[in-house]
Amino acid sequence: MKIHYPNGQPYQVKRIQQSKGKKLIYGNRGMTLEEDLNETNKFYLVNRIAVIHKKPTPVQIVDVDYPRRSAAVIKEAYFKQPSTTDYNGVYKGKYLDFEAKETKSATSFPLKNFHEHQISHMKEVLFHGGISFVILRFSTTEEVFLLEAKDLFVFWNRMVKGGRKSITKEEIAQFGYNIPLGFQPRIDYIKLINQLYY
Amino acid sequence: MKIHYPNGQPYQVKRIQQSKGKKLIYGNRGMTLEEDLNETNKFYLVNRIAVIHKKPTPVQIVDVDYPRRSAAVIKEAYFKQPSTTDYNGVYKGKYLDFEAKETKSATSFPLKNFHEHQISHMKEVLFHGGISFVILRFSTTEEVFLLEAKDLFVFWNRMVKGGRKSITKEEIAQFGYNIPLGFQPRIDYIKLINQLYY
Repeated sequence: MKIHYPNGQPYQVKRIQQSKGKKLIYGNRGMTLEEDLNETNKFYLVNRIAVIHKKPTPVQIVDVDYPRRSAAVIKEAYFKQPSTTDYNGVYKGKYLDFEAKETKSATSFPLKNFHEHQISHMKEVLFHGGISFVILRFSTTEEVFLLEAKDLFVFWNRMVKGGRKSITKEEIAQFGYNIPLGFQPRIDYIKLINQLYY
Repeated sequence: MKIHYPNGQPYQVKRIQQSKGKKLIYGNRGMTLEEDLNETNKFYLVNRIAVIHKKPTPVQIVDVDYPRRSAAVIKEAYFKQPSTTDYNGVYKGKYLDFEAKETKSATSFPLKNFHEHQISHMKEVLFHGGISFVILRFSTTEEVFLLEAKDLFVFWNRMVKGGRKSITKEEIAQFGYNIPLGFQPRIDYIKLINQLYY
């Protein structure tokens, strides 16, 4: 017997994506944005627009079993905090670097989504002439914004000086750029970067 | 009682770096080159010369335990083949991308050290105006060479067409550039890149 939701939709057990174990920790936060960006980056790659990849999740490996040379099994490992941002690559020769985060809050974006060493990394990227930004998604409304690193720093500094620990949605709308969701690519951030930097 | 080697050096059990589990598979091959490059990249970062990081080893996570929210333990995972090169970053605004490998062979460098999708990745990087190369180390003599991707492709294509499956050391010396080992930085590849591209 199939179980249905009151709206007629069949009930589906949500498949736990164990390959993305980290996401489980944070209650699946970020999952959809990551998938959208992976699709977008695949589109950019195949259509030779840009080469952008997500870095693998950093893992501290403690114990490995070698039953056969061809199939080493990691038996104990831990998630490490990333020391850089998650995405980087090349667009028209220039270095592109960004972090992507989403929030369930409808009114503001919590700055605890970023780590201090990620902010330091973004500063270094800017110093060396790279392009650095964050992609922020409000999951309740599915709105996506691009905020340049230089603007993120302003809000980060406000927090460091004792100010609010988030960026209001109004501030993001004012200083950032809304990216309308598309079909292919889903989140066309390169189009915006092209307008801003090239 | 301390055990000493005949030369008077105390005997030390070589610490197994379990955090670099992958290296164990290949009999520690690549360990020293990776360490040298990590030191070099740290030097570049601290001295604000360039921002280059090694990507984390890609791991396919199958099973995660959550005893507490703060300490998720990965109980089963496998090493995945990387889809890109290991190192990338920014130098003077440009995108830099490379792979580093070493061989125990004294006379030639086996091309099986590279995967086809890594070659494809390097081609895409070049297409988009990035700088792409490989750093090759002959571990018996500790000689390090930088070979530009465009030259690597020539030898790769020779193999694909049925030719030899390695690059002779003479060819590497002719088409590549020797990087003398230094103290700080240990492998000053940026100096060479600066001469070649800027």
